[in-house]
Amino acid sequence: MAKPNEIIDILRHSRHDWLNVMQLIKGNLALNRPERIEEIIRSVIQQSQNESKLSSLNIPALVADLLTFNWENHCYELEIEVIGDVKDLSHYENELHEWYSQFIKLLDQCCDEGTENHLLVTFQLLEEEVKIIFDFQGQFKDISVIESWFKSPSSELLVIAEKELSVNEMFCVVTLN
Amino acid sequence: MAKPNEIIDILRHSRHDWLNVMQLIKGNLALNRPERIEEIIRSVIQQSQNESKLSSLNIPALVADLLTFNWENHCYELEIEVIGDVKDLSHYENELHEWYSQFIKLLDQCCDEGTENHLLVTFQLLEEEVKIIFDFQGQFKDISVIESWFKSPSSELLVIAEKELSVNEMFCVVTLN
Repeated sequence: MAKPNEIIDILRHSRHDWLNVMQLIKGNLALNRPERIEEIIRSVIQQSQNESKLSSLNIPALVADLLTFNWENHCYELEIEVIGDVKDLSHYENELHEWYSQFIKLLDQCCDEGTENHLLVTFQLLEEEVKIIFDFQGQFKDISVIESWFKSPSSELLVIAEKELSVNEMFCVVTLN
Repeated sequence: MAKPNEIIDILRHSRHDWLNVMQLIKGNLALNRPERIEEIIRSVIQQSQNESKLSSLNIPALVADLLTFNWENHCYELEIEVIGDVKDLSHYENELHEWYSQFIKLLDQCCDEGTENHLLVTFQLLEEEVKIIFDFQGQFKDISVIESWFKSPSSELLVIAEKELSVNEMFCVVTLN
């Protein structure tokens, strides 16, 4: 079992996130906007389903990093999406976690702190293939490091299948072999 | 930092609890009951404030047990209330945690599983004195063990100042010296 202080800390962060949702609902209730509240609830349930699916992919080290990312100090917000049916990705865990950790650090180094930056990570779990799509919108102060990173050789398990890069956008598709 | 699987597990439980609140709000929105939604939000915010205060008392082992109690298999529901300003209770942590763990186990042994049982634990943090009040409502199948437990000698730090016991109710005030 996790240490007491760690449990308290995780619950503190989670409580804070959910209280923000509550405040949003409360505000829209005061303004008599039931449709907006419905939208908020739908979005929150959707996000929870994403997180729940993500938690069942058998890649705990990566998932724990993803789920706690926005509690840390980064220059971009992370959003997670999971499309398709849950699969066991444990075979890829070590390599994927290593790759992700480096990539995410790189983005932090390269993106402009004064801008609202956003990274959407989509797990596309199709029958034939698993894709992880990284879609960054915001502002980079330097893209040369990411360019070099994209040129580094692929591994056997992880292949960068598509990539696009500009100062305002980065799109990258990783397939798991 | 906690292990990835532990983080995922804590977040899974927390998400489950909050989604129940969302469903409740969603249901009342469909029934066009804004007053009921306001009530739910007020109660949830109040509970969060209790948990947040509890988390600041510097008694992490006990607090982690309290905050995760309802996720485990027990024959009663636990509710937490914190009245007054936050204090540093670290001096009492070991003794209080030990005492609580035994007491809570005892209640699990004694209470009737077929009934809806409820334990309200109130931390009353007054200027002069800290009281912890245990208020059980439900059904005991055997109260003799609790009776004996109440007769066991108090410690220097922890004193059972008041107690009442019947088959349907248990009320017990512990003061910290």
